[in-house]
Amino acid sequence: MTDQTLLDTRKSQAQAWFEALQVRICGAFEALEDACAGPYDPSATAPGRFVRTPWQRTDHSGAPGGGGTMAMLKGRVFEKAGVHTSTVFGTFAPEFAKQIPGAEEDPRFWASGLSLIAHPWNPHAPTVHMNTRFVVTSKAWFGGGADLTPVLNARRVQEDPDAKAFHAAMQALCARHADVAPYEKFKNWCDEYFFLKHRNEPRGIGGIFYDYLNSANDADNSAWDKDFAFTKDVGETFLAIYPEIMQGNMHKAWSEAERDEQCVRRGRYVEFNLLYDRGTIFGLKTGGNVESILSSMPPSVKWP
Amino acid sequence: MTDQTLLDTRKSQAQAWFEALQVRICGAFEALEDACAGPYDPSATAPGRFVRTPWQRTDHSGAPGGGGTMAMLKGRVFEKAGVHTSTVFGTFAPEFAKQIPGAEEDPRFWASGLSLIAHPWNPHAPTVHMNTRFVVTSKAWFGGGADLTPVLNARRVQEDPDAKAFHAAMQALCARHADVAPYEKFKNWCDEYFFLKHRNEPRGIGGIFYDYLNSANDADNSAWDKDFAFTKDVGETFLAIYPEIMQGNMHKAWSEAERDEQCVRRGRYVEFNLLYDRGTIFGLKTGGNVESILSSMPPSVKWP
Repeated sequence: MTDQTLLDTRKSQAQAWFEALQVRICGAFEALEDACAGPYDPSATAPGRFVRTPWQRTDHSGAPGGGGTMAMLKGRVFEKAGVHTSTVFGTFAPEFAKQIPGAEEDPRFWASGLSLIAHPWNPHAPTVHMNTRFVVTSKAWFGGGADLTPVLNARRVQEDPDAKAFHAAMQALCARHADVAPYEKFKNWCDEYFFLKHRNEPRGIGGIFYDYLNSANDADNSAWDKDFAFTKDVGETFLAIYPEIMQGNMHKAWSEAERDEQCVRRGRYVEFNLLYDRGTIFGLKTGGNVESILSSMPPSVKWP
Repeated sequence: MTDQTLLDTRKSQAQAWFEALQVRICGAFEALEDACAGPYDPSATAPGRFVRTPWQRTDHSGAPGGGGTMAMLKGRVFEKAGVHTSTVFGTFAPEFAKQIPGAEEDPRFWASGLSLIAHPWNPHAPTVHMNTRFVVTSKAWFGGGADLTPVLNARRVQEDPDAKAFHAAMQALCARHADVAPYEKFKNWCDEYFFLKHRNEPRGIGGIFYDYLNSANDADNSAWDKDFAFTKDVGETFLAIYPEIMQGNMHKAWSEAERDEQCVRRGRYVEFNLLYDRGTIFGLKTGGNVESILSSMPPSVKWP
């Protein structure tokens, strides 16, 4: 195969993975909606189902620029959950090309990925975020991660069983891919990234974060399979651990005070996404799909 | 008087004005709390009173840097209202000095001002923002403005009586100070500033916005009195028009759907403040008083 044919094959493989993963995650979330026997918020008692909305973008040059599929669920377990895929391409505007590895030489890009966020009704159940992507400019790399945000202060601690289980799953994941996925580095990167500087507090209890993953940045790029295998396993690990954490929490009763605490904590999530999150700010300032980008915003929030 | 003595006198006059205005606005809002005969949100039926919280800041150099007084009310007319004064001084950090007129030559600054935001319970009553300030670097200027944000789509139109009354008050204000306050310029500046680019929609129905107002930027600076008189009249005009608009709306009954619409519209307010508002972003990134800066956030918000 030529280098270009090999790269095209890899793009197809990555996109197919993200799209298949979306279907599986939506299935797992809908299974939780079915399995939950309450308690429910009085306004939502029917098991939720994902609604899929395809969208397309026009590149800033005016040419077709790919698109994606938003899958949104509003249910009785999840007040709001979004599991989105997108495969976009085009050229970076000159003012952004400088910020992207490999784009200054050649502004063309291609990127495919999955991103999800879930806001459960139950304040005992943590909010979660997961994202994986394959990006191609004149370079090519994987990026992504998964992190957990318990919304009650009493549960937002490293000693909590959910925090321990989530970290253990991420550590075991990285251990399975030890030659490309250094756990300590990815864990610390997550802690540094998801931090609200203005409040001097972390967004949640952490997880992993990685970017620019290209373990063999050479002509042969022989480690691509390993990087892809790790990225796939981020999805598999999420599919194993988050539903398990939900099952341990989604049947707990909650008080009005706990619901208030949840709504206030969600305000911090909003502050993070709009003040610091690279993807959100970059997307909004480069004419991204507003509805898709801001679908991560929590459904109800308080700044008392 | 020497130039320095004159400038010190002007600083004192400006600070005294902002602090006196805070007391008067708080009194006017408390009078609305008393005057309202309902309807009330069931969770809030007692007339609200402002709670004043003084705060102090340390300059980035480590020296004392002034402070201010937050005045917050949570009542039955206003779900949340903040009327804040601050008088701060110090030196700009080098990375910010370039962005501030007159600070590159000499990083010392002094600034005093009042800022307020009010989020009524009643969806028929508009959210309002007003801000006036006097800033001194090696230059000196006034800035500020007032703008109205009706939260129901049916009322967020220029033909609405509230929009007309608010604009008329601002136009008459500028007409009283025609040699320093060009209405069309200040109105357009407001429309441009309070605009959500990512949604291609205005935040509210507008008002006025001005900055770097120094009508006689010469050694004598003889027009300072006129600029100050205009800035004072922004406060007086607000005190006349906003309580009047509230009295016309605060007794109207509202539906659950209107309350929902209000909460969604407030989400746009959050998006504006965290993505675009210079004062909010600048304050949060320069170690400002987080509690005071984010007191502008709406009390309850939805992103459905």
